Amino acid sequence: MEKELEMDKELDQVIYIGLMGAGTVGTGVLKVLLKNETSIAKKVGARLEVKRILDKDVEGISAKVAALGMDGSIVTSDINDLVLDPEIDIIVEVMGGIQTAEKFIIKALENGKSVVTANKDLIAARGKELFDVAAAHQVDLLFEASVAGGVPIIQSLKESLAGNVIHSIMGIVNGTTNFILTKMTQEKKSFDEVLALAQKLGYAEADPASDVEGYDAARKVAILASIAFNTRVTDTNVYVEGITNITDRDIAFAQELGYGIKLLGIAKEENNEIEVRVHPAMIPLNHPLSSVNDAFNAVFVEGDAIGKTMFYGAGAGELPTASAIVGDLIAAARNIQFSSRGRLGCTCFEHKRIKSIGEIRTKYFLRMLVKDQPGVLASIAAVLGNQDVSIETVIQKRQKDKFSTELVLITHQVEEHHIRDAIAIIRSLSSVEKMENIIRVEESD
Amino acid sequence: MEKELEMDKELDQVIYIGLMGAGTVGTGVLKVLLKNETSIAKKVGARLEVKRILDKDVEGISAKVAALGMDGSIVTSDINDLVLDPEIDIIVEVMGGIQTAEKFIIKALENGKSVVTANKDLIAARGKELFDVAAAHQVDLLFEASVAGGVPIIQSLKESLAGNVIHSIMGIVNGTTNFILTKMTQEKKSFDEVLALAQKLGYAEADPASDVEGYDAARKVAILASIAFNTRVTDTNVYVEGITNITDRDIAFAQELGYGIKLLGIAKEENNEIEVRVHPAMIPLNHPLSSVNDAFNAVFVEGDAIGKTMFYGAGAGELPTASAIVGDLIAAARNIQFSSRGRLGCTCFEHKRIKSIGEIRTKYFLRMLVKDQPGVLASIAAVLGNQDVSIETVIQKRQKDKFSTELVLITHQVEEHHIRDAIAIIRSLSSVEKMENIIRVEESD
Repeated sequence: MEKELEMDKELDQVIYIGLMGAGTVGTGVLKVLLKNETSIAKKVGARLEVKRILDKDVEGISAKVAALGMDGSIVTSDINDLVLDPEIDIIVEVMGGIQTAEKFIIKALENGKSVVTANKDLIAARGKELFDVAAAHQVDLLFEASVAGGVPIIQSLKESLAGNVIHSIMGIVNGTTNFILTKMTQEKKSFDEVLALAQKLGYAEADPASDVEGYDAARKVAILASIAFNTRVTDTNVYVEGITNITDRDIAFAQELGYGIKLLGIAKEENNEIEVRVHPAMIPLNHPLSSVNDAFNAVFVEGDAIGKTMFYGAGAGELPTASAIVGDLIAAARNIQFSSRGRLGCTCFEHKRIKSIGEIRTKYFLRMLVKDQPGVLASIAAVLGNQDVSIETVIQKRQKDKFSTELVLITHQVEEHHIRDAIAIIRSLSSVEKMENIIRVEESD
Repeated sequence: MEKELEMDKELDQVIYIGLMGAGTVGTGVLKVLLKNETSIAKKVGARLEVKRILDKDVEGISAKVAALGMDGSIVTSDINDLVLDPEIDIIVEVMGGIQTAEKFIIKALENGKSVVTANKDLIAARGKELFDVAAAHQVDLLFEASVAGGVPIIQSLKESLAGNVIHSIMGIVNGTTNFILTKMTQEKKSFDEVLALAQKLGYAEADPASDVEGYDAARKVAILASIAFNTRVTDTNVYVEGITNITDRDIAFAQELGYGIKLLGIAKEENNEIEVRVHPAMIPLNHPLSSVNDAFNAVFVEGDAIGKTMFYGAGAGELPTASAIVGDLIAAARNIQFSSRGRLGCTCFEHKRIKSIGEIRTKYFLRMLVKDQPGVLASIAAVLGNQDVSIETVIQKRQKDKFSTELVLITHQVEEHHIRDAIAIIRSLSSVEKMENIIRVEESD
């Protein structure tokens, strides 16, 4: 009885939230907060209530908010109605974009509000600066939703795995490209065909460049690398290749050789130097990342104590992203309840050199069209050998109705500059008609 | 420069730890704390130092500790050297067992120490009572290592996924049985053969009952269910069947039908009622849990916002378990730094009824030997039909050199009491020679 009274009393406490942006994700946040209001309140010891919503489209959003059963008049187009309201303790930023969002977040932090954001573009580019502002004002800046949607990879890296030295991260962190590669593999269709399908289904945008060129994944892997290696990595530090030149032919050969092709975000540390890259990669079919299909995301982490671990789930969408944001809101609210704001600050206390792409070390899949004549393989093998590249696997297949042959090689591990040098020479050989594709192969030697 | 000075000053701060138990896991904790001392100190803002170690074998452990480069004289057999030392802020309990560990943990909590434990037996049986003591003394009680080794499932459920209503959890939470089932599947060997191999490799104990009978998994799923559904579930609430009656024949049929067999810990909530069970189960080969092999663990969670998510990693071992404990140590140390101890208390604030096994609803795989004569299938199908069990799949195979036939059925979803009633009748049919096995099939209808 006493317990119950205590609970009721606690539930009279309210922590007020200001929501910046009421698009898909913002609406998801409202839905989750409304639907699970009671259980969230019990976990926090206080009710979480959205007091104001910032959006340019006041009328449209008011109607949308009213349709959820909330008071439509809480929508405003004036940032000051949120950041200058002393009752509001936490701001959720789901507007997206960089300049305005940054300005608004800084204004919120400077006014003593904790901030929860899903803004990967901003965190990847300006995370450190924002953390400095948050630290100066002793408030929280949380961003779980910025990577892999609802998958709790940020908190796990910052807290549960904090006892580890992280050696590497490999992530499927872009759902659109994973959907495209999955369909290309399962239905043996071309990139263009599947992209059109993905656009029709809403998995890809009309301008798909940010996804298919790898830029979206690069922002996420920059964030992961910063946390994992306690150093600063921005999106501009990430080497990026997209999936637009992956063909069904590459996928067929990969499968024949026991690999799948995924767009991977890879971050590794060795000897205090790090590498950060996004590109299509072949991974063994028995690797846990290989069975991550469709629009799902997964992040595979190797640490010195934990060994291999993987986090899997929906990487985007209204509710999965809202799950991460509400998780952060609960953490921020608990920190307010316990007067422990700023408990998890920026962990980028090291300065580690970032390797150039030529310095990375992996295996390579080379697919080329060569003349069907004696001595071709020998000459290519000689070029590779001269550049210290040794060959692990060779497949040579006569092309139907053609005078050329398709030659596929997988190398042993080698530093990339050797491969680049070798390929420049191989391209110039008269027996080589076309270097069709070069794909990195991620597995231990 | 100012930053560096600040850091150095912080590093002069020490948070002292008392370690209870220096077996495999305790040694792992010492190794991780020593190896990653600097990065952990930077994350916490203070050094973590083990000041005293409690163990009955003072001489043996002193030598072991000295071999790690630490002062051997910190080992003691007197609990008071840990719990009455005002300098010690955090106790790590990795002794195992129930009664003594419980007494020692309570003594630590009552003396204002935060406690980090890996003790699943104790948390599953007496978690609520311990949390009450921790709450009364405003200290932390953390237990990430008690489930799935280093995999951060406890913190993720308590924090990152806290905005969700969790619908179900399915976990492979016992490495020994997963190793055995994997080898039985991949090498088509019998349970007894693989158990002997597992014992030889150190994956199974001389007395394997706790693993192969499912009791270890039951403790872990009790803990997961308590957190996921905010209610109290102890190990005695869990329905348990082990894997000792799984044969290579069951696995062969499962594979033929597109399933793998795993020992699953399952916890579900519907309409404020929960079910909690551990038993071998068939899951579709394309389910993410299906590719979790060898001694790896994984926990698959479905929540109303996040959708489907999975956490994968090593479920046991010196360093993976130490990873979880050190993660908890860092959290406990941060809470000391921010005076926010007790930030994450017991979340079992609901009282939910636990269903009996007869009330659960799933599909069933039935394998039986029947006489090779007309009308047998019809009579069995009639019994099932009378009990409201409808059949999804039938395979009938003549046994070589025998007059009997092997009949395999998979039912649609049905409440278990119907299946139990039907099976009692089927067993009594003169045309049925033997009911070989009954295995639950976990997939949506």
